[in-house]
Amino acid sequence: MKSLKRIAVDMDGVLADTDSHFIAWYYNIYGIKVPYEELLGKPEGEGFPEKGAARKFAFTPGFFRTLPVMPGAIEAITELMKDYEIYIVSAAMEFPQSLPEKHEWLQQHFPFISWRNIVFCGDKSLINADYMIDDHPKNLDNFKGTTIMFHAAHNANITHHQRANTWNEVMALLKSDN
Amino acid sequence: MKSLKRIAVDMDGVLADTDSHFIAWYYNIYGIKVPYEELLGKPEGEGFPEKGAARKFAFTPGFFRTLPVMPGAIEAITELMKDYEIYIVSAAMEFPQSLPEKHEWLQQHFPFISWRNIVFCGDKSLINADYMIDDHPKNLDNFKGTTIMFHAAHNANITHHQRANTWNEVMALLKSDN
Repeated sequence: MKSLKRIAVDMDGVLADTDSHFIAWYYNIYGIKVPYEELLGKPEGEGFPEKGAARKFAFTPGFFRTLPVMPGAIEAITELMKDYEIYIVSAAMEFPQSLPEKHEWLQQHFPFISWRNIVFCGDKSLINADYMIDDHPKNLDNFKGTTIMFHAAHNANITHHQRANTWNEVMALLKSDN
Repeated sequence: MKSLKRIAVDMDGVLADTDSHFIAWYYNIYGIKVPYEELLGKPEGEGFPEKGAARKFAFTPGFFRTLPVMPGAIEAITELMKDYEIYIVSAAMEFPQSLPEKHEWLQQHFPFISWRNIVFCGDKSLINADYMIDDHPKNLDNFKGTTIMFHAAHNANITHHQRANTWNEVMALLKSDN
C-alpha cells in the first residue's frame, strides 16, 4: 500500500475562525464593533483601536477554548482524511495556557482526529510534510512541501503563496494538484 | 553565517529520569521497591508487579511535573546550545494532562530554552532535524537524520541505534560525528 501524503493543518485562522473571534471579544469587552475590513492587511490583532488588546485576549483563559470552528472545516477534514494523513500543527507554545484549551477544543470539534496526529509547537521549522495549510506566511515561507495560505485578514496583501479563501477552495487546490 | 545543525531532544527518559520516577512512585503507592534490574528489557512500565500501574501514574496529575532531571542534562543542553539549535520534542499528546505540567517543568529546569524550540506531539513522524536523541526506538526508527538512543531500562536489548548511557556519552558521540 502506498503511504498517504501528509498535510500539516494549522488551527488558528484555519480550523478556527480567529478573526471573527477577535472581533467578537473586542466588542464584548470594549463595546466597539470593529469592521472586518479594518483588519485587512494589518498584522494579526493590530487593526483594533486599543493597541495590545488582541494579544491580551490570546493570553486570557477561555479565548482559545471558545473559538468558533471555521465554516466547512469539519466536513473538509473528514473528507481529506480518506486520502491524506492529516496532522494538526499549531504554534501554541507562545501561549502556554492555550495548550489544554486547544486540546479540549480539538476533542470537542474534531474528535475523530487521533492524539497521534496533533502537534503543538513554538515555530514550525521542524515540521516536515507534503502540504502545509496555514494563514501565517512565516510558517509557510520555510516549508519544503506545497503551501496553501488560508485567507485571513492579516495576510490579505501577501501574494507569494497560493491562497484559499475557504475550505472549498482548499479542496479544489488539492484536487488540482493530484 | 552557516545555519546550525538541529537536534531534536526527547524529554521523558532523556531530559527527565523516568525510570527512577516510576520506581519511586511505585514504592510510594505500593510499598514495594522494584529493583532497576527488574525493568531491563521490558516494555516501559511493564516490569512492575501490578500490571497497568505505571500507565496509571502517567495519567495521574503531578507525575510529569515532579520528574527528576536526568543527571548531566542541564549542563549538556547548555553546552550544546552553543553549537546546535536545540529543540525539545516530547510525545506528550497521549497524556493531555501532561501538557501544562511539561511546560512548567521545562520553565523550571530549562528556563533558557525558548518557547519557540518546544514541540509537544503525538508521534514524531513529522519531525525533521539533523539529530534525534530519544530513548524510544519507535521514535528513532523512521527518523531521517542521525539517531542517538539514550539508555533506558526498556531499550536495554535494542542494538540497532547507537547508544548513549549518559549525557557525557551523548556529548562524545556528537563530538566524534563532527
